[in-house]
Amino acid sequence: MVGKINGNFIGKDIISLDQFSPKDLKILFHHTLKMKKIASTASASKILSGNIVTLLFYEPSSRTFGSFSAAIKQLGGQTIEIINPQKFSSVAKGETFEDTIRVFEAYSDTIVLRHPQVGSAQKAADAAFFVPIISAGDGIGEHPTQALLDLYTIYEKFKRLDNLKFLFAGDILYGRTVHSLLRGLSLFKNNAVFLLSPKQLKLSRKDLEYFSKKINLIEIDKEKGVPKNADVWYWTRIQKERFGNKSLYLKVKNKYILTPKLVNKYAGRNTLIMHPLPRINEIEKDVDDDPRAVYLRSQIRNGMYVRMALLGLVLGKI
Amino acid sequence: MVGKINGNFIGKDIISLDQFSPKDLKILFHHTLKMKKIASTASASKILSGNIVTLLFYEPSSRTFGSFSAAIKQLGGQTIEIINPQKFSSVAKGETFEDTIRVFEAYSDTIVLRHPQVGSAQKAADAAFFVPIISAGDGIGEHPTQALLDLYTIYEKFKRLDNLKFLFAGDILYGRTVHSLLRGLSLFKNNAVFLLSPKQLKLSRKDLEYFSKKINLIEIDKEKGVPKNADVWYWTRIQKERFGNKSLYLKVKNKYILTPKLVNKYAGRNTLIMHPLPRINEIEKDVDDDPRAVYLRSQIRNGMYVRMALLGLVLGKI
Amino acid sequence: MVGKINGNFIGKDIISLDQFSPKDLKILFHHTLKMKKIASTASASKILSGNIVTLLFYEPSSRTFGSFSAAIKQLGGQTIEIINPQKFSSVAKGETFEDTIRVFEAYSDTIVLRHPQVGSAQKAADAAFFVPIISAGDGIGEHPTQALLDLYTIYEKFKRLDNLKFLFAGDILYGRTVHSLLRGLSLFKNNAVFLLSPKQLKLSRKDLEYFSKKINLIEIDKEKGVPKNADVWYWTRIQKERFGNKSLYLKVKNKYILTPKLVNKYAGRNTLIMHPLPRINEIEKDVDDDPRAVYLRSQIRNGMYVRMALLGLVLGKI
Repeated sequence: MVGKINGNFIGKDIISLDQFSPKDLKILFHHTLKMKKIASTASASKILSGNIVTLLFYEPSSRTFGSFSAAIKQLGGQTIEIINPQKFSSVAKGETFEDTIRVFEAYSDTIVLRHPQVGSAQKAADAAFFVPIISAGDGIGEHPTQALLDLYTIYEKFKRLDNLKFLFAGDILYGRTVHSLLRGLSLFKNNAVFLLSPKQLKLSRKDLEYFSKKINLIEIDKEKGVPKNADVWYWTRIQKERFGNKSLYLKVKNKYILTPKLVNKYAGRNTLIMHPLPRINEIEKDVDDDPRAVYLRSQIRNGMYVRMALLGLVLGKI
Repeated sequence: MVGKINGNFIGKDIISLDQFSPKDLKILFHHTLKMKKIASTASASKILSGNIVTLLFYEPSSRTFGSFSAAIKQLGGQTIEIINPQKFSSVAKGETFEDTIRVFEAYSDTIVLRHPQVGSAQKAADAAFFVPIISAGDGIGEHPTQALLDLYTIYEKFKRLDNLKFLFAGDILYGRTVHSLLRGLSLFKNNAVFLLSPKQLKLSRKDLEYFSKKINLIEIDKEKGVPKNADVWYWTRIQKERFGNKSLYLKVKNKYILTPKLVNKYAGRNTLIMHPLPRINEIEKDVDDDPRAVYLRSQIRNGMYVRMALLGLVLGKI
Repeated sequence: MVGKINGNFIGKDIISLDQFSPKDLKILFHHTLKMKKIASTASASKILSGNIVTLLFYEPSSRTFGSFSAAIKQLGGQTIEIINPQKFSSVAKGETFEDTIRVFEAYSDTIVLRHPQVGSAQKAADAAFFVPIISAGDGIGEHPTQALLDLYTIYEKFKRLDNLKFLFAGDILYGRTVHSLLRGLSLFKNNAVFLLSPKQLKLSRKDLEYFSKKINLIEIDKEKGVPKNADVWYWTRIQKERFGNKSLYLKVKNKYILTPKLVNKYAGRNTLIMHPLPRINEIEKDVDDDPRAVYLRSQIRNGMYVRMALLGLVLGKI
């Protein structure tokens, strides 16, 4: 069942950030914090004991796969792990996507689905008779748990998601995580986001107009436009595959590299430095050891915690 | 140890339906029903706690793999999952099949084997020193747990496997599940099976003669020969790969499509509509919602239950 | 943290046999024996309950993968299993090896790493912030747990690793397991090793000089040089890929085949017949049933036991 969560996660498909109200996020984040404690205790949790979750990944994704697998097992649940089912016999023989979903719902209590095609998660939710579908990303569409972990990481630090000043850098036009984050932040008041990107990768005019109703958006394309003491820096990768014109890519790809020098000049004492990963060269390795940089630390672990909380809530176990 | 089960499953290799007597099926199905209850309770079973089962799949098979994986985990057991070992280093370096079997028997309490070559399951059973082999299908040979789940699905509905009227449709010549089912039904009395297929896909004359000794077989090739109120309809896919002659395939492939109209005209109030899956287009989607159609519901879940029972019995835990 | 173990395994990376002193081996083997008992009891162990171990295999290896997977699950732990991450999206997009390691350390309590490149295990240990790395082999470099299981198998039989007489046969020049074993044996006194190989596959002069300081090495190239009643025979495969010159390979490949006749002529009543596997044709199948031949029996299982002990010690659970 897709639809607004409205305070009740049990049995809900998790397809889009749009299903979450600020109150739903509060519930989820409350449990996420608890999960952090559960994961750090030595004793094994039994919260998902007796539950089986299918990880149905139509494209491999080591981080998201590992994070969901760990989340389930941290809670004492079990997994059925199917990677690239399209190469498996049934699907290769011409079985429909809907039939495949219905096979795996027969074996498990929920299906975590990763698929390269936009809309697949919704299609799976429509096909499933009995169990909820949790999207682990559908192509250039949504990746709700990535957005939730980003929001939680910010919330964990500042205890709020309003009245914050952000710097987003890199690919603002195509970056899926950037769009999800904007959607999440637009649920809250008085946020300002500086968008640092080359002209070719600015937010679409339609999105600019849409999000400007909720967020104060400031487009910049030069380092000197970076605000001092933003609460959050969110860096992203510029993807080669977005450029038909190779020389254009070469021109912009190294335009906004996050260096210790940049951090020293513009970041504040409490600025959270985030990146959705994978990181290629857009953040210099020397930044990794900065305690404000969380992309290789709490941001990854928070992905596991938020997925633990989501699974526990959807399966009605917490 | 391959051989007749004779009421004692412990340590037996499960290679063929021929190992089962009616009494063995009764024992298995008695436990299968119990497994259904165990799987539907919220608390975790410990029946296979401490047991490790290797899933050694020389060809991927999402349904059978998922079903065995779920069956083991439903009972609190653990798996070692090896898909396509022939691409793994040891086997690629020239290790014999027998040595591979003996490596995995060292790690686990039983090996569930899927292999594309007929006879592999027997070969594995001969190679294993210590642990039983459970076949998950060997090519065009046998797939005993598929046959068992089909028989159980019928048994669950009618509480008997004798005195039943069947309609089998599609590929009667090559269909592995059809042959297994005939073999299973021939253990019981007074069964009648209508075989609906194009002339090119009729049962071989040898098989017709053999099974006719036990079952009343009626060959038909037109819809109008379909009996009214059969107890079970078992539909199958016509496989392109069976036809050297492409135009012949195109001629027969859509000859027997299961439609709501056909159901309304010939099926009875209690007719069980089955299909071994994957289904391509030989059953129209509109039939899926008919409560008599179990191929996307209990038939799949019964596969998990019957495998749970079989594992529990072979490992001596129930 | 790589470095000498010095009696304390907790949190240590396990990269090389050089980290182990005779006393460390004694501790490990003491626990390995206990693990053997744990694995053979019917009840499930909880020693690694609540622990998650990532199996990060950059090349598939059915035996080592299966052995680690079984070891973890025998102790009640859970796994995140990632095979060929280089084909997964993040790594394919250009993520560094170090970042990948740091992602998986966020999800798990230790990472078992298999990688085709020499030095990768050390590189992973350097990259990991929080969790120990256990090497499952890095290319033609080290494979410490293989060496440990070989040493344990000898220790289990003779209750000592000194004052033993060995016969090593096959590829003495390139064979990784042979080198590891020589390194292990050189920690102990009064060992003698007969090295049976074709001239082209003799130990390098440098290694000969180095190991001769600790072990009495005797090079032979004819069957008649084989000593009577050696304590251990360690046979290895001659790898085709080592020979640029194909005719040279054909000349030597079948030079030292272990046959029942050879066993009868030279082996003693208590000679342990070992092979690291995979075995191609260098040991005749008729030798398999000889009770002195342990390569398809205790040698494989000991791999699981020694990995159980190592994991328990590194994770501080035993």
